[in-house]
Amino acid sequence: VSLAERRCELPHDRGSTALVVVEEPAAIGSELLDWVEGRSLHVVTSRPILEMHGEEALGGLSRAARDWQVHEVPDGEAAKTPEVAGRLWHDLLAGGARRDSRVLTFGGGSVCDLGAFVAGTFMRGLALCHVPTTLLAQVDAAVGGKSALNLAAAKNVVGVFHHPERVVASTRLLATLPRRELAAGLVEAIKMAALLDLDLLAALERDLDDLLGGAGGPAWADIVAAAQRTKAGVVTRDPREAGERRVLNFGHTLGHALEVDLDFGVLPHGEAVAHGMRFALQLAEARGLDRGFAQRLEALLARLGIPPLPRPDTRNLLRVLQHDKKAGPEGVIWVLPTAPGRWEAARLPGDQVAAELEVFVARHCGAC
Amino acid sequence: VSLAERRCELPHDRGSTALVVVEEPAAIGSELLDWVEGRSLHVVTSRPILEMHGEEALGGLSRAARDWQVHEVPDGEAAKTPEVAGRLWHDLLAGGARRDSRVLTFGGGSVCDLGAFVAGTFMRGLALCHVPTTLLAQVDAAVGGKSALNLAAAKNVVGVFHHPERVVASTRLLATLPRRELAAGLVEAIKMAALLDLDLLAALERDLDDLLGGAGGPAWADIVAAAQRTKAGVVTRDPREAGERRVLNFGHTLGHALEVDLDFGVLPHGEAVAHGMRFALQLAEARGLDRGFAQRLEALLARLGIPPLPRPDTRNLLRVLQHDKKAGPEGVIWVLPTAPGRWEAARLPGDQVAAELEVFVARHCGAC
Repeated sequence: VSLAERRCELPHDRGSTALVVVEEPAAIGSELLDWVEGRSLHVVTSRPILEMHGEEALGGLSRAARDWQVHEVPDGEAAKTPEVAGRLWHDLLAGGARRDSRVLTFGGGSVCDLGAFVAGTFMRGLALCHVPTTLLAQVDAAVGGKSALNLAAAKNVVGVFHHPERVVASTRLLATLPRRELAAGLVEAIKMAALLDLDLLAALERDLDDLLGGAGGPAWADIVAAAQRTKAGVVTRDPREAGERRVLNFGHTLGHALEVDLDFGVLPHGEAVAHGMRFALQLAEARGLDRGFAQRLEALLARLGIPPLPRPDTRNLLRVLQHDKKAGPEGVIWVLPTAPGRWEAARLPGDQVAAELEVFVARHCGAC
Repeated sequence: VSLAERRCELPHDRGSTALVVVEEPAAIGSELLDWVEGRSLHVVTSRPILEMHGEEALGGLSRAARDWQVHEVPDGEAAKTPEVAGRLWHDLLAGGARRDSRVLTFGGGSVCDLGAFVAGTFMRGLALCHVPTTLLAQVDAAVGGKSALNLAAAKNVVGVFHHPERVVASTRLLATLPRRELAAGLVEAIKMAALLDLDLLAALERDLDDLLGGAGGPAWADIVAAAQRTKAGVVTRDPREAGERRVLNFGHTLGHALEVDLDFGVLPHGEAVAHGMRFALQLAEARGLDRGFAQRLEALLARLGIPPLPRPDTRNLLRVLQHDKKAGPEGVIWVLPTAPGRWEAARLPGDQVAAELEVFVARHCGAC
């Protein structure tokens, strides 16, 4: 893969986002230097990320900025609350942020989601870049212009569209992630590959053990770049999720409900989506999906070594599903594969979903 | 004025806003019936407005909606806080709001600003209508797609662009407003007229005493429609305030700072803007504005009978001005008239502003 293929553009209604994948964190600085130079830079991050990678990844930028301020937020989903957003608004104002200031997120998907929300709502929108440090953020959360907060009863229910100007992902940062977190991130790549990019699916099947085993090296950059390109294509064609962009919700309908039912943070997002994909495959088979393709995806998910699903409260799960923000007047929409690389958006009767869910829980939580 | 002239369209990047001025509140229902029918309708309002005008203005809609929920918020600027927005998000979710639900604001400028922010950020944007009940909201806050929250140290610093689908203003509702509130609302109309629409300025000069004295009748509808049309023209040409839309900030630079310095709510927004316009006229004269036009505007403002400016803390005012969200790297931008119907956006040295402010306060707060 040439370096050119590790860059792509995502055009949107306010301009374009440059998506760049580099290997070494030291290369991040040169990608953002002109964006930061002479500006007031506000970094949204969490302390562990900053301590582990801050100097290496952002040290040069901190010296290039006219003014450099770090806004620490909690790790994980705990960052994505109205309270934390409110604190960040106050801190930006107290820190002298103005319309020409820059916001840079440095962390995982939650930091992206929160930072983009705060940047998108402060003074009706500050310029934003993402420097995602987890696989999940690199292939998914940082790409596509969404932002989000959670409320106690629903995930990602508050948010605006606010596109970053650039996304710079260093794949060397992935080497420090625990295997479980890498696996959770790969779920989002598998999700897109299965319904949109069969070449990427084949590459994931071929390289999965190397990637998870720490022997990934340059393969990571290729996988991340390919997944970003696939997502960017979808978002470009359907920026506001009127149609095709729904495909990215494969596995997320039950996934989000599981996260809410089990309280945010108990189940990592990628793992929740993996369980959701398995459930979607079960629903899809009931609508005629070829068993071979379902087995192929299940086999790939199994290689991730994701822990078994904790037993959910199925009655509560069904209630939470009704709050799904993608539910319309006729009910929840399920993204279901119909064949390799193909999918449909289906509304299913509530009683069918309830019955399938009982089967699913009995099958996957048998021992728990 | 024909009825057709009391309707105009404000095109924007997500469609178009219909701006409609009616006289009787009973006519509001027919303008919104199709928008509400069979939908879940969430009304953001305050209790006094609802008790005084709710049945008359919205009764028909409440029966046409599939589901009707009222979300009460505090009166005035107290509504525009992150805490109230957070409560509304929770209430919308608990009330079963979905992507196809409708949000209708019913109240003054603060209700518009808050309701539009919450609608614009809930599920990344719910459909919105404004039914503004104060003059200020009818001619200004409801028009143009802005939304806003205040933080303790700055006004309107949090917000997104989220255009309403329709704005329906009933001018009969104005008859119940105290004269002081009408006067404050007229300030925004005078602001636009002075720099953009000299016909409107002449109409205001001609009709002002009737309007304030309760003998306005149909004249109100003409004034409101003309002011909306003038603002809609500016917003259409410059939706995101890259240039011409700045003109709407005439009087607002010092005005917002006065509101912050005196704590929100002490000084009604329109009165703060009137003081800000007087200060802008003083600055403009120093840059060569013809004394005759300055005197003409001062005379019109004087007829409003606005109470004298409470003595501000000038040192704090200057500090608050530095936080103005429209400040750029070279300082605060002042919108200053240069001639009747003409204006400039000027950056002034901080020491000049400080000196002029001392003169201004000495001149206008002499007795306090």
